[in-house]
Amino acid sequence: MAMAGSNRGPSARVLLQQCLRARLQVKPAEPGSEAEWVEIQRGLIIYVCFFKGASEEIIPKIVDTLVNVKLSETEGGKYVSILDLPGSILIIPQATLGGKVKGRSMQYHSNVEKEIGMELYSQFVTQCERELSANTKCAESGAVLKHGTYGNRQVLKVDTNGPFTHVIEF
Amino acid sequence: MAMAGSNRGPSARVLLQQCLRARLQVKPAEPGSEAEWVEIQRGLIIYVCFFKGASEEIIPKIVDTLVNVKLSETEGGKYVSILDLPGSILIIPQATLGGKVKGRSMQYHSNVEKEIGMELYSQFVTQCERELSANTKCAESGAVLKHGTYGNRQVLKVDTNGPFTHVIEF
Repeated sequence: MAMAGSNRGPSARVLLQQCLRARLQVKPAEPGSEAEWVEIQRGLIIYVCFFKGASEEIIPKIVDTLVNVKLSETEGGKYVSILDLPGSILIIPQATLGGKVKGRSMQYHSNVEKEIGMELYSQFVTQCERELSANTKCAESGAVLKHGTYGNRQVLKVDTNGPFTHVIEF
Repeated sequence: MAMAGSNRGPSARVLLQQCLRARLQVKPAEPGSEAEWVEIQRGLIIYVCFFKGASEEIIPKIVDTLVNVKLSETEGGKYVSILDLPGSILIIPQATLGGKVKGRSMQYHSNVEKEIGMELYSQFVTQCERELSANTKCAESGAVLKHGTYGNRQVLKVDTNGPFTHVIEF
């Protein structure tokens, strides 16, 4: 998989799945209050995990790739970018993507420190939002960006017409 | 990520997600016949993609890792293997996992040839089935193994309590 241009490992691993509808819990139920959910219709689910050594300079490149790569299927069966579809985006922080098998367990030693990861995640969401809202097609079609809460359990329900799963490293 | 012990790239890439329920279309609707689906309840979704150079010798190792790695959460919040949960397994062939970004498109040049991939997939399913049915806990609890049809569009609906997504290469 793609390396970050040095001997270091990658800065981020991203998993992409296409959906017809996806719902993600952003606040668990508590005594006296129901769980809160966000929802998108047709669009792209982005699961993201940052590795140790990742810095904010990498984020514009990741965002540019993800919003422009042609992985979204039109009604006519052609593949276009999520901006050209136009479709919505659901971003899910997913630290488990950084896991490596060690015996019968997974280890996460390459994952970024939690506070830095939270800051990178926040910037990643902001820059994706900016791309989506700057795009006329998306704005006119009512495409939205929703995202999970860093550190939460990502309770997720997905309907697809084929997840068309891709992994990209940066 | 793990290499196959030589300078060659990996033989397979596997994506794991936990589910509470998952439904996969195994035959599309046709005039006069409805679509056919398979379904599992609580368990493990295994998306699998084989690369060029993969051979059947690698399959026992992949299967052994996947059925024994402790990624399935018990009611008590402990992580155990899918055999120990005990839970069901849904296997999905997912050639897109072998994609690499090239400009704004994905390329799949590392993917195994289709006929070999079909044979490896078939053996992978058979060996997973064998592990599940040889396990007393799974047999007694009614855990099942279901799988997608190689080459089909993998229309999928998933409910999770957190997908807890992992990527493993072999």
